[in-house]
Amino acid sequence: MQDIIVAPATALGGAIAVLRLSGAGSIACCDSIFRGRKPLAEAATHTLHYGTICDGERVVDDVVVSVFRAPHSYTGEESVEISIHGSRYIASEVLRLLCSAGARMAEAGEFSQRALAAGRIDLSQAEAVADLIASGSKAAHAIASTQMRGGYSEMLEGLREELLSTTALLELELDFSEEDVEFADRGRLRTMLTDTDRVVERLMESFRVGNAIREGVSVAIVGRPNVGKSTLLNALVGDDRAMVSDIAGTTRDTVEECVTIEDIKFRFIDTAGLHDTDDKLEKMGIERTEGAISKAQIVISVADPDNEFVELPQLGEEQSLIRVVNKMDIAGCRDVEDAIYISARTGEGVSAIAEALRSRVDTDAVYRGDVVVSNMRHFEALSRAHEALGVAVSALDMGVSEELLAEDIRVAINALGEITGKITNDDILRTIFSRFCIGK
Amino acid sequence: MQDIIVAPATALGGAIAVLRLSGAGSIACCDSIFRGRKPLAEAATHTLHYGTICDGERVVDDVVVSVFRAPHSYTGEESVEISIHGSRYIASEVLRLLCSAGARMAEAGEFSQRALAAGRIDLSQAEAVADLIASGSKAAHAIASTQMRGGYSEMLEGLREELLSTTALLELELDFSEEDVEFADRGRLRTMLTDTDRVVERLMESFRVGNAIREGVSVAIVGRPNVGKSTLLNALVGDDRAMVSDIAGTTRDTVEECVTIEDIKFRFIDTAGLHDTDDKLEKMGIERTEGAISKAQIVISVADPDNEFVELPQLGEEQSLIRVVNKMDIAGCRDVEDAIYISARTGEGVSAIAEALRSRVDTDAVYRGDVVVSNMRHFEALSRAHEALGVAVSALDMGVSEELLAEDIRVAINALGEITGKITNDDILRTIFSRFCIGK
Repeated sequence: MQDIIVAPATALGGAIAVLRLSGAGSIACCDSIFRGRKPLAEAATHTLHYGTICDGERVVDDVVVSVFRAPHSYTGEESVEISIHGSRYIASEVLRLLCSAGARMAEAGEFSQRALAAGRIDLSQAEAVADLIASGSKAAHAIASTQMRGGYSEMLEGLREELLSTTALLELELDFSEEDVEFADRGRLRTMLTDTDRVVERLMESFRVGNAIREGVSVAIVGRPNVGKSTLLNALVGDDRAMVSDIAGTTRDTVEECVTIEDIKFRFIDTAGLHDTDDKLEKMGIERTEGAISKAQIVISVADPDNEFVELPQLGEEQSLIRVVNKMDIAGCRDVEDAIYISARTGEGVSAIAEALRSRVDTDAVYRGDVVVSNMRHFEALSRAHEALGVAVSALDMGVSEELLAEDIRVAINALGEITGKITNDDILRTIFSRFCIGK
Repeated sequence: MQDIIVAPATALGGAIAVLRLSGAGSIACCDSIFRGRKPLAEAATHTLHYGTICDGERVVDDVVVSVFRAPHSYTGEESVEISIHGSRYIASEVLRLLCSAGARMAEAGEFSQRALAAGRIDLSQAEAVADLIASGSKAAHAIASTQMRGGYSEMLEGLREELLSTTALLELELDFSEEDVEFADRGRLRTMLTDTDRVVERLMESFRVGNAIREGVSVAIVGRPNVGKSTLLNALVGDDRAMVSDIAGTTRDTVEECVTIEDIKFRFIDTAGLHDTDDKLEKMGIERTEGAISKAQIVISVADPDNEFVELPQLGEEQSLIRVVNKMDIAGCRDVEDAIYISARTGEGVSAIAEALRSRVDTDAVYRGDVVVSNMRHFEALSRAHEALGVAVSALDMGVSEELLAEDIRVAINALGEITGKITNDDILRTIFSRFCIGK
């Protein structure tokens, strides 16, 4: 028997706010402070009821209550949602009354944790719900949405079950060890392990783009002082502002150096002061450039008619370079191969940079609905599975005992199980759900 | 036939957010992007439906939709509420889809304006809804709540109808003017007018406390430099912070100089620099003190063992003085009559000031459920009614014609009618509803 938990499910400050209760007895708890045409106890699931919330004789608010009977709710438990007027005072009063009537304030993520416990969703789906709420771009939304719908979980469970049935065969061999039988064909076993590993590797590879889309694709703008790096950034941000303000009611939190271009968020790495040193400190300046560049997925190198491009270190295979010549409005262009010619001041050519940035992010897999890993925890678990599978294949090739082989495979099984929450512990769960907001 | 309007009804940024549609065709509009077990068109009023919002084949979100059929909704129109995951991206996508399907973004207060047009609420009730949402203290909530429940409207309508039936009799006399009959007994008429005026005056009087509770009771802290005025204010604010943070999920907007003590908000008038001048500028200093004091309902005058109380101008009848002696921890107390002895530094005695502040605000009428006027627009309309009634009584005493008398009374009738919206014009409505939030 679980406690009745309660929390605001919406942000406060709007015309209305929604408080959410969950747990057996939620309806009775709400009934004790609700006055409507009839008690909520008599209400069918998925019905709405107008009435008032009362503190004794005092009317606290006019509300609409939604009734969800178990198991037909997000948590799988009996649940109630109360639509109140969106005043902080009213919210705190109704919460206080509900807590007096037997509910307690929910902890962060506690509703989702109950949905997990009830088997309504698995762990990666619960994490996807949090990602979905946080998603600020179409691509980030698409990744979280695919993960929430469970395709990822199914894929991982498929891999895990194949590995499980193999270890079962290996363990069977152990029981007959004196008879030297092989229930698990070693050739087929090897193929299965390498096939599984290939899928794991593909998922790991998807993390690069998945993580970039979730956190924002990192971009460094480098160039000598006064070539117009900040003006360029402002021009890009300005475009974004105009785009977002089209839709009323969606005021955007000001994030100084993030720009959403079409469906992708780009995060600009601060390169202020790069090369802003005298000759003596040139080495230090280059070190700082290199630091910024090593962290970036895309590097925008800016020159102008008076300043050459700065010398860049060798970029990694997965990094991308965009060369820009600024101040085309005040000076004749030089012929730089593959460069984008702009005037950051007038804004001319800035959209070409936006297009170039967008084109460097490959989102085919995302919109095809493929599983794209975006969560660091999942990536780490996949890495451990990958390592264990490698060890298992080597062990197989060296002809080690069934016992040791089964143990290696079991490491991979457990690592995959951690992602969906089949294998887990309270510490991990606590860490994951503490990052959720209250009311989810 | 009204447009279908749509807007977020909750603030964005929580676990969920609610979008609200209203207008004939809302259900069909939502159905065009909703996929559930069955179409919403088949849904009964006050039922909840789980499903997905789709943009063609692409699933945008898992949602729960509430169906309200006319006239059983806030606006009195067919309405739909969509509970989405609380991401700004999802909110803007769903709004975009609904607008493509025939809805348009609602203007501020447009839902309430429709409720008014449908006769579900009157104008003063619509204003009370906005006040209720903005209410940040128990007392402000009580005033808005009484007003929303319509007691105020009934009282005003009662007065108005009595005045109306009287003018009807006076106008009847006009029809028989050659016969010199009096359908309206002049003695009874005078009593009725003065009785009505007395009620109007009582309502006007209630505005002083009502407005103070709504906007915050204004308090000036005055005293010579370094007597501890800021420390005292910080100590009062600190108490408040601790109080509010008891309730999870109710983070408070930082309002530097507002303190809620028990059920009342107090607003501290900036008196920084008061008396912070040399002798030459003493006169100017005093003028500034006087300015701050004239705006305050309560004046806290602070002295310490080294500094006398500053000389105060004569306070108004409705102003109140609290005398405080600070630094009682570092120096012996002197015997000041009626003063509160405190140490703003250690916090000793600060609660006594909080109690004193609270005790100076008379909230008996508020909690008795009496009508308390808190809205400046209403106060101004009442003032006009009061003036017109005074003129009418004088006219009666001077024996003016039925025609002129009826005209004076009609001014009062119209002024009272403006409050509930019986008499109004589009400009007034536009001004009132533009102050509402989107989605209400």
